[in-house]
Amino acid sequence: MSDKLLFTPGPLTTSPAVKDAMRRDLGSRDPEFLAIVRDIRRRLVELAGGGYEAIPMQGSGTFAIESLLGSAIPPEGRLLVAVNGAYGRRMCEIAERLKIDTVRLDFEEDQAVDGTAVADRIRERGPFTHVAVVHCETTTGLLNPLEPVGKAAAAGGAALIVDAMSSFAGVPMDLAAAGVDYLVSSANKCIEGVPGFGFVFARRDRLLATEGWARSVSLDLLAQWRGLERDGQFRFTPPTHAILAFHRALEELEAEGGVAGRHARYRGNHEALLEEMAQLGFQPYLPPELQSPIITTFRYPDDPRFDFEAFYSLLSERGLVIYPGKLTRENCFRIGTIGRLFPNDVRRLCRGIREALQVLGVKS
Amino acid sequence: MSDKLLFTPGPLTTSPAVKDAMRRDLGSRDPEFLAIVRDIRRRLVELAGGGYEAIPMQGSGTFAIESLLGSAIPPEGRLLVAVNGAYGRRMCEIAERLKIDTVRLDFEEDQAVDGTAVADRIRERGPFTHVAVVHCETTTGLLNPLEPVGKAAAAGGAALIVDAMSSFAGVPMDLAAAGVDYLVSSANKCIEGVPGFGFVFARRDRLLATEGWARSVSLDLLAQWRGLERDGQFRFTPPTHAILAFHRALEELEAEGGVAGRHARYRGNHEALLEEMAQLGFQPYLPPELQSPIITTFRYPDDPRFDFEAFYSLLSERGLVIYPGKLTRENCFRIGTIGRLFPNDVRRLCRGIREALQVLGVKS
Repeated sequence: MSDKLLFTPGPLTTSPAVKDAMRRDLGSRDPEFLAIVRDIRRRLVELAGGGYEAIPMQGSGTFAIESLLGSAIPPEGRLLVAVNGAYGRRMCEIAERLKIDTVRLDFEEDQAVDGTAVADRIRERGPFTHVAVVHCETTTGLLNPLEPVGKAAAAGGAALIVDAMSSFAGVPMDLAAAGVDYLVSSANKCIEGVPGFGFVFARRDRLLATEGWARSVSLDLLAQWRGLERDGQFRFTPPTHAILAFHRALEELEAEGGVAGRHARYRGNHEALLEEMAQLGFQPYLPPELQSPIITTFRYPDDPRFDFEAFYSLLSERGLVIYPGKLTRENCFRIGTIGRLFPNDVRRLCRGIREALQVLGVKS
Repeated sequence: MSDKLLFTPGPLTTSPAVKDAMRRDLGSRDPEFLAIVRDIRRRLVELAGGGYEAIPMQGSGTFAIESLLGSAIPPEGRLLVAVNGAYGRRMCEIAERLKIDTVRLDFEEDQAVDGTAVADRIRERGPFTHVAVVHCETTTGLLNPLEPVGKAAAAGGAALIVDAMSSFAGVPMDLAAAGVDYLVSSANKCIEGVPGFGFVFARRDRLLATEGWARSVSLDLLAQWRGLERDGQFRFTPPTHAILAFHRALEELEAEGGVAGRHARYRGNHEALLEEMAQLGFQPYLPPELQSPIITTFRYPDDPRFDFEAFYSLLSERGLVIYPGKLTRENCFRIGTIGRLFPNDVRRLCRGIREALQVLGVKS
């Protein structure tokens, strides 16, 4: 019995070789394991274009975000978060829980974060030590342009924090050109590993200035980096099997032609999806110029017979897993096109969607 | 090529079936995955003897400890930590980082935590809202008796927190009789899963009283529990593969005769170790009445030709991984006897140790 295909934002469908890489028990101080961790960190820095430190952090991507916000912002720091979806709101929630002085700048969920508005807000309410933005807002699939936000942050003397959880290595980006100081992503997104840890990129000079700021021991980013630099070891037990899977996933990324190759496949998946879904009468929520190839939001059909739970189950019975919506104001569902999926898998999904609509008696 | 045998406190040698369980990609909202999470929580509560809530938490065991300390202790709370090793000290470090008013009661590393001394300290420096103690101090392998500490805490009106990271399910314990309010352990210890998450047991009434106390979003224990109770889902991406492995590991624990069966095997491993090591001239650091069957500390041989790094490497070349010491004042190393290991594996280790000593020219 083969597993269902996961058209979700993660955990994703991974390759058989990635999963097979976990059939080993390595000690966390074993030289072979330490060499793998070193190679992972080297490959990550390469993917970021060089000039950053790569720091893996145990837990889900949210743990890595909290690690960054709780470690890199000084006690007297001030954070501006540009928000156009649930993941921007989550950064605000984390920062507020950590008692960080936080200002939120809201945009509509179908609008990109606007650099001019960020610059204006910095003038009105600044100075800020840090500005944070989500790259691909998984709530909708919207890709926020980073450069204008980076310029506004730099002009206001603030460091730029980017949540690139669902886009890093799946969408080409020039971190240095965008003025990124910190960026966060996770093992089980576009690199196509399994869940268990996230990772943070940090400018070395920024990182070294954060001594004494971390609000948590487990999530202390600087201490994690120092531990890895000192003896190559994690301070606390690493998810050894997930790390072996990730190493294999990085090799597969390289074999696919790096970020460019992976992006081309995801774009092919996304284009196949749009084409097939249009034939079924679905229109994407976002205009094409804002849409990432990562995940796509579709509005419910305008038919009272459409029941999302039933629709989801009919697809799931066919081995096809989609994702519920997360919009504040509209009924929608989402289809992810990342992970070990190809355009033919997307077409298989859309055949399943056609069948499910027929079962439900929904016109398409 | 088979993996090295891990005579460590974890990550451990796991069974082939536990590793094979990870060769699947399940969606984190998939009904099959949710049923597995539910069954894991049910089995954990059973292992705790009933009467507790079981809350898995992403990250290493230290993350679960911090989740508990940061969520269960109120802003005006006061914590007394009984310390006789590095893991007791770590609880102090976490609590102090979280700005929790913490008093530390130190014992020698070769002495058990003494309930009378705990009661005295509560009288002198109390009241405390919480008292924390490590069950098996992995620093030495010492097993602290819980009941006297629980009685002292209860008499002083404090809740009892137990770090049973390396002992839970490997050593029989009666949580209710010991007056345990909270207990923490991890997936890759005596249940013999792979690393990726820990879990917290909490008395339901205690847990429900913690509303608004959590100092972290990622590590918010009450929110994690509420999320799992509401729809069976983790709030943030769970380590799906490590959870599948853990479910298989729990089935294997049951097949081995539960905690009693597992404890018998670990005791057999430990006894084989003591017998073989005595023949090689090694004496354990702890007296037998304080010693757990989990991990055993041995002093370096009294011979200048003994070099630990060389000794470790000679064993590692033979596929045998041991663990360095962690004592404050003495040179020692440690040998773990948990994980998918049997007395014959321990005897194989000791043959390797004999060879390594010969290569080094150390008299034994």
